[in-house]
Amino acid sequence: MGKRMSWKVIMALSALTTLGSPLYVANANTKSLPKTHYLAANADNVRWGNIGKGDPVLTVNSGDIVTVEAITHHSGDDYERMIEGDAGVEDIFHWDSVEKNEDLRGPGVHIMTGPIAVDGAEPGDVLEVKILDMKLRPNGNEKHEGKTYGVNAAANWGYLYGDMAEEPKKREVVTIYEMESDGVTDYATALYSFRWTPQTDPDGKVHPTIDYPGVIVDHDTVEENYSVLKGVKVPVRLHFGTMGVAPKEADIVDSVPPSYFGGNVDDWRVTEGASMYYPVSVPGALLSVGDPHAGQGDSEINGTAIETSVTGDIQVILHKKADLDKKLSDLNYPLLENENEWVVHGFSYANHLAELGDNAQKDIYNNSSIDKAMKDAAHKTKDFLMKGMDLTEDEAYSLMSVSTDFGITQVVDGNWGVHAVIGKGQFGEAEQQTVGLRSSFESFGAKIGWNNAKQAITISYNGNKLVMKIGDATATYNGEKMKLIAPVLLLDEKAVVSDYFASFYKSVLSKTN
Amino acid sequence: MGKRMSWKVIMALSALTTLGSPLYVANANTKSLPKTHYLAANADNVRWGNIGKGDPVLTVNSGDIVTVEAITHHSGDDYERMIEGDAGVEDIFHWDSVEKNEDLRGPGVHIMTGPIAVDGAEPGDVLEVKILDMKLRPNGNEKHEGKTYGVNAAANWGYLYGDMAEEPKKREVVTIYEMESDGVTDYATALYSFRWTPQTDPDGKVHPTIDYPGVIVDHDTVEENYSVLKGVKVPVRLHFGTMGVAPKEADIVDSVPPSYFGGNVDDWRVTEGASMYYPVSVPGALLSVGDPHAGQGDSEINGTAIETSVTGDIQVILHKKADLDKKLSDLNYPLLENENEWVVHGFSYANHLAELGDNAQKDIYNNSSIDKAMKDAAHKTKDFLMKGMDLTEDEAYSLMSVSTDFGITQVVDGNWGVHAVIGKGQFGEAEQQTVGLRSSFESFGAKIGWNNAKQAITISYNGNKLVMKIGDATATYNGEKMKLIAPVLLLDEKAVVSDYFASFYKSVLSKTN
Repeated sequence: MGKRMSWKVIMALSALTTLGSPLYVANANTKSLPKTHYLAANADNVRWGNIGKGDPVLTVNSGDIVTVEAITHHSGDDYERMIEGDAGVEDIFHWDSVEKNEDLRGPGVHIMTGPIAVDGAEPGDVLEVKILDMKLRPNGNEKHEGKTYGVNAAANWGYLYGDMAEEPKKREVVTIYEMESDGVTDYATALYSFRWTPQTDPDGKVHPTIDYPGVIVDHDTVEENYSVLKGVKVPVRLHFGTMGVAPKEADIVDSVPPSYFGGNVDDWRVTEGASMYYPVSVPGALLSVGDPHAGQGDSEINGTAIETSVTGDIQVILHKKADLDKKLSDLNYPLLENENEWVVHGFSYANHLAELGDNAQKDIYNNSSIDKAMKDAAHKTKDFLMKGMDLTEDEAYSLMSVSTDFGITQVVDGNWGVHAVIGKGQFGEAEQQTVGLRSSFESFGAKIGWNNAKQAITISYNGNKLVMKIGDATATYNGEKMKLIAPVLLLDEKAVVSDYFASFYKSVLSKTN
Repeated sequence: MGKRMSWKVIMALSALTTLGSPLYVANANTKSLPKTHYLAANADNVRWGNIGKGDPVLTVNSGDIVTVEAITHHSGDDYERMIEGDAGVEDIFHWDSVEKNEDLRGPGVHIMTGPIAVDGAEPGDVLEVKILDMKLRPNGNEKHEGKTYGVNAAANWGYLYGDMAEEPKKREVVTIYEMESDGVTDYATALYSFRWTPQTDPDGKVHPTIDYPGVIVDHDTVEENYSVLKGVKVPVRLHFGTMGVAPKEADIVDSVPPSYFGGNVDDWRVTEGASMYYPVSVPGALLSVGDPHAGQGDSEINGTAIETSVTGDIQVILHKKADLDKKLSDLNYPLLENENEWVVHGFSYANHLAELGDNAQKDIYNNSSIDKAMKDAAHKTKDFLMKGMDLTEDEAYSLMSVSTDFGITQVVDGNWGVHAVIGKGQFGEAEQQTVGLRSSFESFGAKIGWNNAKQAITISYNGNKLVMKIGDATATYNGEKMKLIAPVLLLDEKAVVSDYFASFYKSVLSKTN
């Protein structure tokens, strides 16, 4: 919760010399700017269902920013709204009796952009992926210009498949959702739904259930029901369902079960403003990004989220083994950080590839439970608090009980997940250091401006401009409205933010357009 | 999140005639006022460990308000700070070689105030308990005046007991926390901790572990460690860990395993501003209240929360079977509602007393799992969405996946819990109806005032006064600062709130002091 400011304090702001000087100009040291790459989604730049080792489609240096297009594998459920007219998506999905652009689909289902190699990454290092921005992919079809759609499929791998009240108990239902895409997206509404019927692919194979990704649904064979979830506005939580590095244990790796290397973690907190930390286990790290979601609850109970396509800006930061912070040393799971939380991810099997032997990638689907995932999450959380926060085992265990929230991440991805949310606020300055806005941003060459009439702070750097009002939840970035990860606060009449905020928006401003 | 108002709109408020008239005076219709009762905690008014049927200590009418004192059963861990000088607590804990005031302790552990009978309550009805206020119990010991303490015990029933990294793996550690008690309490800090050592009770029985409630710890036998969780400020979440009605299945009912009748649900959302709905299964309902907590995370992993004593104001509302709303008809579990959420509670066994046979109260401790609780929560949530929100089974299942968060309530109470949090906001006006503040409060006779200089709304009723500023998270009630369940918003220059807000604060104002 942001601290509310009194009106008197706002007025006092205009008198601040620290913010009020219009004459200060700093030159951005462009030498220190990270390089910005663009990684388009097309048949060349994605793999379908596999997040193992492979030839990189892009190699970057630590600190580089990548604008990465990520495409949902559920696009075929509504070709007209999610594929047609979009050259990249058409390229990936192209499949007729003569030609199938993405011939290798499996063992998993996700369209993964990458892999991206990070120069110098070696086993034992930690790769940080900072999510600077996520935007819904504009529709490529003129007929649906300005609209974005997503798919929720109650699928055969869903938690209640076969355990429904109404007949047929084993049914798959696809619901098409429509989203707002103004950058501060608020909600999704259901447009229509249909029950899955056997679909025939271009090779003549019939798919009685959703058993193979990228089959284009023939809408002449299904009954569209437009009377669905009328009046319901689902809150949008844009996130990457699947993101991670290549594990060392196997060459071809099913993208469905998440594990120590990240992958299909399916935590909706993997969103703009968050950093994910992954343990590197192969040279180059080999990062893959995909499975974008527009909305998901903890558990992803029916098998999918609102699956949609998203373009994200990510910054890739390599933390070398020798220099690892105490929170990251010996990291053996995907760890999330955001402005207010650390999130530890546990799984039924912490490393299913190593633990389940030669048939791990098949057996994982028959051995998961939430109970096992909770046990894993509990131990990891205790270890994190002890090592990362310098607590004794007894202190850590007490804090886990009195303030840590354990939730069910997902029960549908083979290797089920439980996560623990640890609030940073309880550690005070040790975890949420308050820093002066002006000094933080000027330290790397940003220019700070103050508009008294509009009561607004402007931060200019690298051709980018961030305009914020103290206490506000939103800002404008290069003229577009966006959510802030936290409001700017006033402390002793000085504009302050957290060190995390300062670091995050430094990265955002460093992107070259 | 409250809608932020622009400054211009605030200024415009002063010109509003609807709020600006100082002359309007309404007479509170005191005939319609509920009766306010006071239920003190002492040896006569509590039962220790049993929440079954029994003689009521108080009988109320539907709509009555009860100020109820609830005492933690962990007070004996620090006699000086949590018992000494407090006549009620001393009375309950009194036990020497000659006399033991609460001789019957068991089969559970909680000190339960009640039971409270509700006139006219019959099986099939639903009892709503609206939590109007919760305040930490003032310390009775002059030496610790103005301070409040709580206990977190990493106990033998904790999730990682015996599964710790350090020796002895089977250890119990008690941490004493100190809380702020200004009504808008923010945090708790650890004062000291000690490892449990065998304690001898007044009858000469030795307790090698925490195996019997109310044993007074002899601090000459333990080593107090004051170097514990330095600098950590745990966010306070005041709530009742155990509250519920008497089940029909047994006469003496262990207070530890929660079930369809409520009881030891241990959800920190059972707090001020929330309503709990319980299915009545015995005449009079027989409500018991206890086990107050000052802080707990989802899972309560080490066995306890920050256990403390609290005095609450609750309103008890009987919903007769014939008139039940669609959300409450055939209710068979404890359901929570607050300003923004519905929370469905699932358990490993929905009704362990009926499902596990004659030895249910013992067997429940050996048969629980989170997986079973998730299955129960999933089915209950689907049923709730279908019946309560008029959704088809397919609509409900989709919404459960794209926006419902499943969390782990607790893994330490015999019958483990999983809860589902359903946001009201996604249903719009159907679940969060916007109502005019003035008309809502005037409709039952409250008087509305507007102070232009302070930009404040005053609602006066029954001798009580609530003062709020638009957009603020806090207010003053009878001169004391308090948190609001939501900020008052402006819509078309009119002060508006939700219907839940209006109903809640009508109840708060109805309490007679």
